[in-house]
Amino acid sequence: MTFRSSILTLYPEMFPGFLGESLSGKALERGDWSLDTIQIRDFATDRHRSVDDTPAGGGAGMVLRPDVLARAIDSVADDGRPRLLMSPRGRPLTQSRVRELAAADGAVIVCGRFEGVDQRVIDSRGLEEVSIGDYILSGGEPAAMILLDAIIRVLPGVMGNPESGTHESFENGLLEHPHFTRPQVFEDMQIPAVLTSGNHAKIEKWRLEEARKLTAERRPDLIQPVTK
Amino acid sequence: MTFRSSILTLYPEMFPGFLGESLSGKALERGDWSLDTIQIRDFATDRHRSVDDTPAGGGAGMVLRPDVLARAIDSVADDGRPRLLMSPRGRPLTQSRVRELAAADGAVIVCGRFEGVDQRVIDSRGLEEVSIGDYILSGGEPAAMILLDAIIRVLPGVMGNPESGTHESFENGLLEHPHFTRPQVFEDMQIPAVLTSGNHAKIEKWRLEEARKLTAERRPDLIQPVTK
Repeated sequence: MTFRSSILTLYPEMFPGFLGESLSGKALERGDWSLDTIQIRDFATDRHRSVDDTPAGGGAGMVLRPDVLARAIDSVADDGRPRLLMSPRGRPLTQSRVRELAAADGAVIVCGRFEGVDQRVIDSRGLEEVSIGDYILSGGEPAAMILLDAIIRVLPGVMGNPESGTHESFENGLLEHPHFTRPQVFEDMQIPAVLTSGNHAKIEKWRLEEARKLTAERRPDLIQPVTK
Repeated sequence: MTFRSSILTLYPEMFPGFLGESLSGKALERGDWSLDTIQIRDFATDRHRSVDDTPAGGGAGMVLRPDVLARAIDSVADDGRPRLLMSPRGRPLTQSRVRELAAADGAVIVCGRFEGVDQRVIDSRGLEEVSIGDYILSGGEPAAMILLDAIIRVLPGVMGNPESGTHESFENGLLEHPHFTRPQVFEDMQIPAVLTSGNHAKIEKWRLEEARKLTAERRPDLIQPVTK
């Protein structure tokens, strides 16, 4: 099955970008996922092909017009794929949401630019706002690429070793334990003895303890989620 | 002043990627920031140029060798720039951390691949782990591009309108209020009357209330931070 992504953007030339290389590039060639870009500007109707206008109520920046964006969205067949809007106002992306999205047939992804998108098109077209983190980017395109990168690597067949995908940070609610590899001694530092003991039960126990310790130190919010 | 970024990666060809286009591309041409990529593989010493090895203690995936990565890091002059490792185990990136980093002379950014990086090189080279979100990417490169995108847009002179950068989500601890623009009526939906009233005090009050309401609904964690 192919995960079909349709990207609505003012910068279609930014895609596939880095997604065309490495594992995701091979997966694109194989047809594990597909990419279709829609230039929002093609749906402007005035002679200047304007897509944005000044914010109602004043202020800096420009806002993406609802009518133009709605026509662009309506040009994509409504086949049940989730419609996402990359936006710092959205629900923060998590690994479990990545897995949910990867299990769908694909996604329609709207990339905002300028100050924002008219709220009426978000409401009327049922766009789900998705945030990749608590910081501001130049636009929705980099965020869309991150979302796709995370989705693509968990699609069936994309990663060489399927086990690689399940022993990682967040998959069990914890940050990942520290890693070590050869050489045995690096600048007078040894690999922790337990890891070379050959005792698999002890190794698993050590890794879980280290993961718990690290998570408690760095991300107590993952252990005791905020009550909503 | 130029924000100097040095990227250590196994995929130098991924850079500048989308950072070479749009606003950040123009900023790169102008010299507001610079990019220097270091191929980690150039610091391998065996005849296969190996950079990774199996994890001590067993398990899936491969781990980046400490000796090879340490040589790559040591090849970059230690001139006080922060040394960052893109990693889901890191401290989550925030807009205030973006502004702090943007105020520095630049950054040395290590992109991990495979299962992870040997802990001894993280410790001995003082790498600060930075996470862009609670999800797993194909590697550190996409995360490094996001970090740079966020930094570049707040560098002096990069954005046309400096005001655009300060009225946004997170800059005041809240998600941004909804936006509206022309047309006045879109599919029977009006722009909220207050926004076209011309009463600036009322408009500001409405925007703040909407921002507070939205943040309380979607991101209560931003209003009442978890006690650490």
